[in-house]
Amino acid sequence: MSRFFSQKYASLTPYTPGEQPRNRKYVKLNTNESPYPPSPGVLKAAAEQAACLELYSDPDCTDLRNALAGFYGLAPDQLLVTNGSDETLFLAFEAFADETRPLLFPDVTYGFYPVLARFCGIPFTEVPLDETLRMRTEDYLKPGRTAVLANPGAPTGVGIPLAEIRRIAAADRDSVVIVDEAYVDFGGESALPLLKDFNNLLIIRTYSKSRSMAGARIGFAMGSAELIQDMNTLRCSFNPYNVGRISLAAGSAALKEHAYYEENCRRIIAERERTAQRLRERGFVFPPSNANFLFAARPGLDGEKLYLRLKEKGILVRHFTKARIADYVRITIGTPEQMDRLLAAVDEIMEEEKL
Amino acid sequence: MSRFFSQKYASLTPYTPGEQPRNRKYVKLNTNESPYPPSPGVLKAAAEQAACLELYSDPDCTDLRNALAGFYGLAPDQLLVTNGSDETLFLAFEAFADETRPLLFPDVTYGFYPVLARFCGIPFTEVPLDETLRMRTEDYLKPGRTAVLANPGAPTGVGIPLAEIRRIAAADRDSVVIVDEAYVDFGGESALPLLKDFNNLLIIRTYSKSRSMAGARIGFAMGSAELIQDMNTLRCSFNPYNVGRISLAAGSAALKEHAYYEENCRRIIAERERTAQRLRERGFVFPPSNANFLFAARPGLDGEKLYLRLKEKGILVRHFTKARIADYVRITIGTPEQMDRLLAAVDEIMEEEKL
Repeated sequence: MSRFFSQKYASLTPYTPGEQPRNRKYVKLNTNESPYPPSPGVLKAAAEQAACLELYSDPDCTDLRNALAGFYGLAPDQLLVTNGSDETLFLAFEAFADETRPLLFPDVTYGFYPVLARFCGIPFTEVPLDETLRMRTEDYLKPGRTAVLANPGAPTGVGIPLAEIRRIAAADRDSVVIVDEAYVDFGGESALPLLKDFNNLLIIRTYSKSRSMAGARIGFAMGSAELIQDMNTLRCSFNPYNVGRISLAAGSAALKEHAYYEENCRRIIAERERTAQRLRERGFVFPPSNANFLFAARPGLDGEKLYLRLKEKGILVRHFTKARIADYVRITIGTPEQMDRLLAAVDEIMEEEKL
Repeated sequence: MSRFFSQKYASLTPYTPGEQPRNRKYVKLNTNESPYPPSPGVLKAAAEQAACLELYSDPDCTDLRNALAGFYGLAPDQLLVTNGSDETLFLAFEAFADETRPLLFPDVTYGFYPVLARFCGIPFTEVPLDETLRMRTEDYLKPGRTAVLANPGAPTGVGIPLAEIRRIAAADRDSVVIVDEAYVDFGGESALPLLKDFNNLLIIRTYSKSRSMAGARIGFAMGSAELIQDMNTLRCSFNPYNVGRISLAAGSAALKEHAYYEENCRRIIAERERTAQRLRERGFVFPPSNANFLFAARPGLDGEKLYLRLKEKGILVRHFTKARIADYVRITIGTPEQMDRLLAAVDEIMEEEKL
């Protein structure tokens, strides 16, 4: 850090995103992207908007909010659109957590949460998952906290039943519960049905996974109009034009082609189950996944070593150095062809390692 | 605000962007967009990237940083790319200002600065411009402040000579001076030549004005590698994938077609001078503009009234309610045809008002 840097950030360690290789061509199973491209309407919307990029985007994101409201059966003022769901998280943390309402999230979760909390200067507690990498609902029932729950969990893939989310939201109706449903379309149970009963519930979604648009940076929040209004006050105070023209139009276009994305989700879920079975046959263990990835460990094979050996063979998966999960690698589910290449590489490594 | 909203934001008033009308078709001269579309390479880049939006963008923005570095004669580590220049400002304020180094900017400037400062919880002082809406350099020479100067000024259009920026940067080499050069391509004097001598100087630019890409949300900062590194630490702690694939590729493509944008700037400057002459003939007064707009008042005609009457006639300009500048409207320079329509509408209004 320079001598100009504000002291409050002196100890900040930024988030490390998964590798986005620019030179070598990998089978890229490391950042939970969809293996399928966006639908034709998205390409058309992008081309149309590119021709009028000289004009600002709608700062209210009206069309996309209306489209999302119609799609999810909500009112437009229950929707907020952001530059990726990391920005939604930023606005939610800033709006609904502070020293008087610290954050509470699992010790094994999306690694961005603690980084963001430190950036925001918000105290947080990391609650250990149980030994099977599952959340204990009891840990989240105490009042006065702002709970942040990835459902399905990251990087575990484990889903949280709706009844458990309800218990947590009901435990303190004066504190916000943030449910990050980035992966919910791959077989998770959404908290959407709870919104009518809980004005303290905030659901966060992204176009980066099931909607094949990680590169368009679209996140959104769904919640009570009052929660959304608070977040919107912050959004307009820090980046009023936070979503560009192409992303707004592409986001609406994708909703009109929902069947395409639904079919992709079905293919990914089927491929996840096939891959899980094949990995199990090879001695891998993992929690059951409701997401588009498997969080897998092979007893006898170090997680980092597996990651590095796969990388040598042209396959990128994600490894986290955190001690508790260092045995694991997170494997994004790609196409059947990509997963066959992964399985073949795993076979080679196991043979080389005499496993 | 809801009962969930963090108390620290209780008094926050968000920024009000210029109207982005969605229904009626206006001659849109209110948000300083370019009247010319982006260049062909931008459209091509957008179409190419739309087809692979399922992949995340490069979180390091490597290609665009390299391209900008080459274009401006800097090293890549002197560049930071953001989701519009409002995000650059956010990162710069957070990184280089706090209670120990409060912000200092003119009372009449980009209205987003005080909103953003309040959002960030950073104290600030607004220094009155002189009666001709010019900055007094002496006001910015005191140590221990983080100065923020729009050059050319917003909404005045008045340029600050390079020698004055140098004096301010030299006055305290331990504090950062932020120069917001959003409009510099329309005849301002950039502080770029000072970067080699001042590691406390940060220049902020945007693709929204001279590069016809307001809808793509691309801002960037140029400065010493140490300033950029600090801002990058913050960027990666709050939104690591802050710029999408299409914007990154479009940004690089535009640099390869620089002649097109340079020619557009020449046309806009010529049209500004013609419009200025025509408005002067109609009794308007304004400070000399180095930007793509005129900040104009017509003695005898209330600024808000002029704005409203022009709007009735299908022409949008910007009016600010702040008392000191309530007599003025800010008129973006469009095509000659658009400016002719403005002038015709002004003539009508003056006749109706018997001026």
